[in-house]
Amino acid sequence: MSKNFVEKITNMEVDFAQWYTDVVTKAKLVDYSSVRGSMVIRPYGYSIWENIKDQLDKKIKETGHENVYMPLLIPESLLQKEKDHIEGFAPEVAWVTHGGEEELQERLCIRPTSEVLFAEHYKNIIHSYRDLPKLYNQWANVVRWEKTTRPFLRTLEFLWQEGHTCHETEEEAINETKKMLGVYSTLCEELLAIPVIKGKKTNKEKFAGAKFTYTVESLMHDGKALQAATSHFLGDGFAKSFGISFLDRDGKLQNVQQTSWGFTTRIIGAMIMVHGDNRGLVLPPKVAPTQVMIVPIAQHKEGVIDHAYSIKEKLSDMVRIDIDASEKQPGWKFNEYEMQGIPLRLEVGPRDIEKEQVVLVRRDSGEKITVLINELESKIQEILSDIQNSMYAKAAKHLKSNTSIASNLEEFKSILHEENRFIKAMWCGDVACEDLIKEESGATSRCIPFQQDELSDKCVCCNKEAKHMVYWAKAY
Amino acid sequence: MSKNFVEKITNMEVDFAQWYTDVVTKAKLVDYSSVRGSMVIRPYGYSIWENIKDQLDKKIKETGHENVYMPLLIPESLLQKEKDHIEGFAPEVAWVTHGGEEELQERLCIRPTSEVLFAEHYKNIIHSYRDLPKLYNQWANVVRWEKTTRPFLRTLEFLWQEGHTCHETEEEAINETKKMLGVYSTLCEELLAIPVIKGKKTNKEKFAGAKFTYTVESLMHDGKALQAATSHFLGDGFAKSFGISFLDRDGKLQNVQQTSWGFTTRIIGAMIMVHGDNRGLVLPPKVAPTQVMIVPIAQHKEGVIDHAYSIKEKLSDMVRIDIDASEKQPGWKFNEYEMQGIPLRLEVGPRDIEKEQVVLVRRDSGEKITVLINELESKIQEILSDIQNSMYAKAAKHLKSNTSIASNLEEFKSILHEENRFIKAMWCGDVACEDLIKEESGATSRCIPFQQDELSDKCVCCNKEAKHMVYWAKAY
Repeated sequence: MSKNFVEKITNMEVDFAQWYTDVVTKAKLVDYSSVRGSMVIRPYGYSIWENIKDQLDKKIKETGHENVYMPLLIPESLLQKEKDHIEGFAPEVAWVTHGGEEELQERLCIRPTSEVLFAEHYKNIIHSYRDLPKLYNQWANVVRWEKTTRPFLRTLEFLWQEGHTCHETEEEAINETKKMLGVYSTLCEELLAIPVIKGKKTNKEKFAGAKFTYTVESLMHDGKALQAATSHFLGDGFAKSFGISFLDRDGKLQNVQQTSWGFTTRIIGAMIMVHGDNRGLVLPPKVAPTQVMIVPIAQHKEGVIDHAYSIKEKLSDMVRIDIDASEKQPGWKFNEYEMQGIPLRLEVGPRDIEKEQVVLVRRDSGEKITVLINELESKIQEILSDIQNSMYAKAAKHLKSNTSIASNLEEFKSILHEENRFIKAMWCGDVACEDLIKEESGATSRCIPFQQDELSDKCVCCNKEAKHMVYWAKAY
Repeated sequence: MSKNFVEKITNMEVDFAQWYTDVVTKAKLVDYSSVRGSMVIRPYGYSIWENIKDQLDKKIKETGHENVYMPLLIPESLLQKEKDHIEGFAPEVAWVTHGGEEELQERLCIRPTSEVLFAEHYKNIIHSYRDLPKLYNQWANVVRWEKTTRPFLRTLEFLWQEGHTCHETEEEAINETKKMLGVYSTLCEELLAIPVIKGKKTNKEKFAGAKFTYTVESLMHDGKALQAATSHFLGDGFAKSFGISFLDRDGKLQNVQQTSWGFTTRIIGAMIMVHGDNRGLVLPPKVAPTQVMIVPIAQHKEGVIDHAYSIKEKLSDMVRIDIDASEKQPGWKFNEYEMQGIPLRLEVGPRDIEKEQVVLVRRDSGEKITVLINELESKIQEILSDIQNSMYAKAAKHLKSNTSIASNLEEFKSILHEENRFIKAMWCGDVACEDLIKEESGATSRCIPFQQDELSDKCVCCNKEAKHMVYWAKAY
């Protein structure tokens, strides 16, 4: 069978889940393997991750953090040291029981997250307030034994960074928790063009072992929510269990106050589901491995290919640009690079050369823009920047128009029965209401947003006194 | 106990192994953890790895390779598909047998290397000669169940890159194998100032599953050898077992020809043992996270600290420079940054300010150089470059003066009985001789160097006709 055509993908309005699977495979982001629930991240997918990683790593270092590397394997006894943490993670870890031919005396889990490893190390290196703060981060793979998996969104193994910090005071640690949430929300909004709601998780939804969890929540095209990143204030829970104490400025022994925060390959799934369309992936220019793809038209005609290469040369210091001068038909190339979500296509053929122009085609809107060669350098930057902004604006509009207010449980259910979306509703703070809402509607509390609206003074569920406005949704 | 002094380290001539352990811990490169055989790579150690990684990643991309990411876990049945490969690796893999509460139907090993995962993926994506070559690389962690371990040199888990490529012809694949060995040897020599011997492993020492293995071998301060990196020609062994075939230019079905090549965190151990001395680590300037450390003298005197900071500011675009303006004594600081192997110390005090000069102290030689402030920018580059070159020259001299020729087994044994070193000796090509040499002397064949000397026409062991000159040594 010839591979010289772009295969059609499922219509996203008909079957969003199948559309997603089609996009991740046909845009060559991932391949499946015989390892259940794991994915092969292909060059195109990995280069997107490298771009995100480079930007985030820079921010993490600019905010004073240092990278380290902790072991992959955690002895069972070490994982058990913090009670809430082990309860949360034990059901979903992979256990190593044999090394070579030998059965191990103590089994080891593959890290699902590394709080206990950092805690053990911090105990060794922190003795005085002079040793604080300790601001560490690591880039690593982690494993969580998920039953149902989907590329990027939920996989047995994923890649992430996990920050782990120690501070003298609660206030300083809480400020760190907020600061890193800010780094994540800026990254989502400015790099990935994904608008987010910043807030706090309810106690039910917080990280196992944390005092509280901050989160950035985003809304996918299909109206389901996705947690884009989290930042946890751990308090002194791990410090108590592991004995991470220091002599403070008054010579008294104190426990450190800790945070942890993480950002994963999951975000690539979010980017696909926020921006993608029925022709495939749509990538924000700032994160696209190739920002401009040149497709020569009637390239067998004399001078066309040379001219196309000279344009590539001219722009290559300014944008990430590539050319497809293969013998495939332009139509095939158009489809292929639309599938891959490349922000701009640059077409140039004999007539364009004559008129000293090129034609630019925007992936986000399909708009065709004819640009004179001598204006190309300034125009192309402008257009890429406009694409980035338009994509954000479009996603922000979608978020806004897909957010409803519910004032009682019936209304809540009927909204979600019609279609998936964010629901803003008041909540009394009682987990019983949270559980009931989930049972009745399928929605979970996504966050208590920092920006509170006083929708009413009654809980949407029990009608008792409300404490917070909460964002609710069905979620990935 | 006050930590305000630098602890002494063991003399390297008295106990080299203990000296090594002292250096890696006291220079704050690693910490131990409760995970047997694994290490915590601390910020200083990790930033050295980041520098090496950045340079190597750039080279790998410049030579046309793309980064991907394969799963951590390998099903047992997949690992078993290539017979030689599984035989070599089965005794040293970690086995996952449980996920959460459930026992797995098929156990999974943590990748010791990823040939079989790449092979499975290549089978999916390679169909025609047009799909070739495929030049992939991944940065990952791997696990090998070692009995005795030492930080960097031999650990249960280590970090590395592993390149895996597919080609149309044997010739092209062998060229790739050579090219990547060249990338490694250049990196060792030019970045890390480690001279290497390039050559081929004997059949006994080659990679499990390879047709042959190229290697770069280096010599440590104590006269033991260390394999710095390897590059394997796999031929079509994996292609046959996994069915990675393609339609060639004549429309015939062929197996791909493969290579794989890897470079690991082990190299940090080599760098320590090649360049270190009794005051600690000595880092080549090109890889040092901090190249110049400013230590203000009599810093309580007016203007000294401001002046020191202004020097830092002035040089910070040019070199990786830091300042220690803490209240610790200059003597403490001298020792500390010598332990950390920072290539240059810059001292500046009231008298220097008066004379418009600074004092530079070289870590490699201890030489003090007084430099006028207005010549600092040009001089400092020159000195760093001279340090880099001197370190290489010193290591090359050590390698040369610690290489002997042996013409019979008695001589071979008596040389190694006296002290560890490289031995050049002729070999018949018979594994029986290789085994006997190891048994009698403890030395293994390190490589058949590309650059052959005709030392004699008789095997050093059996006295029969010699085929190759071989480098032998006891090895890490």
